[in-house]
This record gives sequence, structure tokens and C-alpha cells, in this order.
Amino acid sequence: MKHLSPTERSTVRRGANRARTDRTDLYAVLDAGLICHLAVVVDGAPRVLPTCYGRDGDTLYLHGSTGAASLREGGTGAPVCAAVTLLDGIVYARSVFHHSVNYRSAMVHGHAIPVSGEAARLRGLRAITEHLAPGSWDYTRAPTAKELAATAVLALDLAEASVKVRNGPPVDEESDVTDDGLWAGVLPLVRSWGAPESCPLLPAGTATPGHVLARWRPEVQ
Amino acid sequence: MKHLSPTERSTVRRGANRARTDRTDLYAVLDAGLICHLAVVVDGAPRVLPTCYGRDGDTLYLHGSTGAASLREGGTGAPVCAAVTLLDGIVYARSVFHHSVNYRSAMVHGHAIPVSGEAARLRGLRAITEHLAPGSWDYTRAPTAKELAATAVLALDLAEASVKVRNGPPVDEESDVTDDGLWAGVLPLVRSWGAPESCPLLPAGTATPGHVLARWRPEVQ
Repeated sequence: MKHLSPTERSTVRRGANRARTDRTDLYAVLDAGLICHLAVVVDGAPRVLPTCYGRDGDTLYLHGSTGAASLREGGTGAPVCAAVTLLDGIVYARSVFHHSVNYRSAMVHGHAIPVSGEAARLRGLRAITEHLAPGSWDYTRAPTAKELAATAVLALDLAEASVKVRNGPPVDEESDVTDDGLWAGVLPLVRSWGAPESCPLLPAGTATPGHVLARWRPEVQ
Repeated sequence: MKHLSPTERSTVRRGANRARTDRTDLYAVLDAGLICHLAVVVDGAPRVLPTCYGRDGDTLYLHGSTGAASLREGGTGAPVCAAVTLLDGIVYARSVFHHSVNYRSAMVHGHAIPVSGEAARLRGLRAITEHLAPGSWDYTRAPTAKELAATAVLALDLAEASVKVRNGPPVDEESDVTDDGLWAGVLPLVRSWGAPESCPLLPAGTATPGHVLARWRPEVQ
């Protein structure tokens, strides 16, 4: 079992009872999420942008246009912070104060290092593509040299990270738990896939491939 | 019609064709989202954390424990950046390079100013609570003086913000649009509410109230 080894800034202080310390918990949140929020410092001010990512072992891969200011900042060895958050439900407590949310959350601190070398860059892009759209890397046209040159690939080491999870019912003051008939509980938030929408430029009758069908309806594959 | 008036850093450069410039587009994204990612600078490094929020006119309210380091940093007049992102689908293109996501995204730059005065603080907390759990402010116990004292309420002005939206099918290279039988399209991501889960401490038979039922199943209310 590999543990997260918290540093000063990756030690969970608020809601420490929600902290998870096993590295597999970190992987689980990163693998379940679809986008991350990447924060960088630009001219002394924070900037946060949503972006796609992929994981390969203990590396989080990010990518973007070589022209994007935020990725430029993030890819020069400057410190970055990436968060992946899954919201699982709204916690309706008996008091306003104890309202909360159920969630799974990962935060990674580090430096986003530009990946160089064609094989290494392709490996990073493959991780991102397969995370976003499993099966697409082999199914679709590979990047050309020109496309590769226009794409920045960044690697963020997962060494310094924290994970928090909240689940379960509201935690109320004992004095609020009465039999006054008022309700409390959780309204779960559910994420699911809708039916695939074929590109209008496709010839009529083009079949949706297995890797897309399997994601949409895993139970019937 | 009120327009967003972009500053240098809130001018959308990457994918400028996806930028929206009407203030109602900003409101729509903020009102549809449930959590934001708030970035602050701590000891020169960026830190991003997911947090709840509420909107009242052109103010975004944030809150947290008065003991939270990130909110402390954010609430001392230091610059912050908040992002609200809704992921609407995965765009399966004909090439790896043109894979993308459909999304609605808002980014706000500014300073998170501590709100003082009981009435103003309650107004901010009400906005956050009603955004998170519509109907809960009047239904549940109001904050005590002690609870209020333990809660930091911050206001972020929506003056400096940008909005980006991508929707629709893949945008491929013309040379990739062939009749080779390969599929391309969008797999929509759908967010919905699950059945309310009553707190185990509730007396048996406690009815789920209308404001929760209306959110879960608006079509049957």
C-alpha cells in the first residue's frame, strides 16, 4: 500500500476527518474525474482554468495550445496547483450552518514540466486522449508532426497531493435532531452519459463504434 | 442588455470564437453551476480549492470557516480567480488532435472582500444556501451568533469576468471528413438528481418536503 506523504501545504486541516491518505484514493478520484482546474500565477495574480488531463502512474499529463498564456506560465517550471472535484450530492441539514455537499476531491501541488521528445509527448497525449475518450487513440487519426508541434504537453508529478471525501447523511447539532417533522437528508447528484449524437457530416447509417457504446451503456456490452 | 467589458486578462484569446460577451451569459453559467474553483496565491504559489457559492446581482458570495488558510488569503484583499465549469459532453473527432469537450465556463477575476455587518453577512449566506439548496434558508434553523462568528463571508464583484461556451459536433479537418465508415460525434454528459436519501435519524415516515421534491422531479410538481 502506497501512502500519500503530506507536506505542509498538502496536509488537510479543515475537515481533517475527511482526508484520505492512501495513494489509491488519489488515483480513484483522478480516474473518475473528467476535467481538472489548473491554477497558475500570472503577474502576481492567480488564474484558474478548466482543462483536460490524463494519468499515467504517478504523472498527471496536461496539454494545450503552445499559444495559451496560462499553459505557458504553467510550463516554465512555475508552481501550479491542480484540483479534480466530483460533486456527489447536496447535504440538507437541520440548520443552515450544517448544510454541506458530498464530494470526492483531489488537489495536486507541483511544477508542470514541459515534456520533450516525440515518444514521451505521444505517451502523454495518449494518456489524455484515452482518459477523455477511451478507445479514441487507436480509432482516430494520429497527430501529424504539425499538430504535435502546436501542442504543449506538460507533466505534473503526483508526489505532493491531498484527497478529501465526504459522504453520508448530514451531521447536525444534537439539539437540532428532534421529532418536529422537518426533513433532513441528501439529494444525490448523478452523472450519466446521454445517447451518442452522430456528427451531421457522417454518411447516413454510420454505426456508433463499440468503444463509444460501451461507455454510454456499459451494462449492455 | 448589459455587456461584459473585457479587461486585458479577461479577454478570451484561445478559442475566441467561443467567447460570450453578454452579462446574461455569465449569470446563466454561474446560476447553472453548483461549485466554483477558487484560486489564491499562498506563499507565491497558486492554490485552488472547490467551494460553494451564491450569486446576488453582480456579486458572487463565498464562505468558509474563519480558520481556513485559503479563504484567509483570499479575504485580505489579495487577488483571487474563480471558475465555474459545466461539462456537457465529450467531442469524438476524426483525429486525436480535434478531440474536445462541450462546456460552459465562467472565469471571474477580482478581490474577495470580507463582508461585515450582520445583515450583509446574512444576505450573503442566504445567497449561498439558496444556491446550494433552494428553499433551505427558510425551512431550516437560522445561524446562531456563534455560528455566524465562525463563518467568513466574502464578496467577489463580477465586474471582471469572461465566459466561454462550446457546443455542437466535432470540427474536423476537411481532409479527415471521408466516407471510410469511421464514426465521429458527441457523447453528452448529463447531470441529474437521484432520489432523496432521508437522514437515518429521522422518525420513520417523515415526508420529503416540497422544495426537495421539486428539485428532484420538477416535472411532477
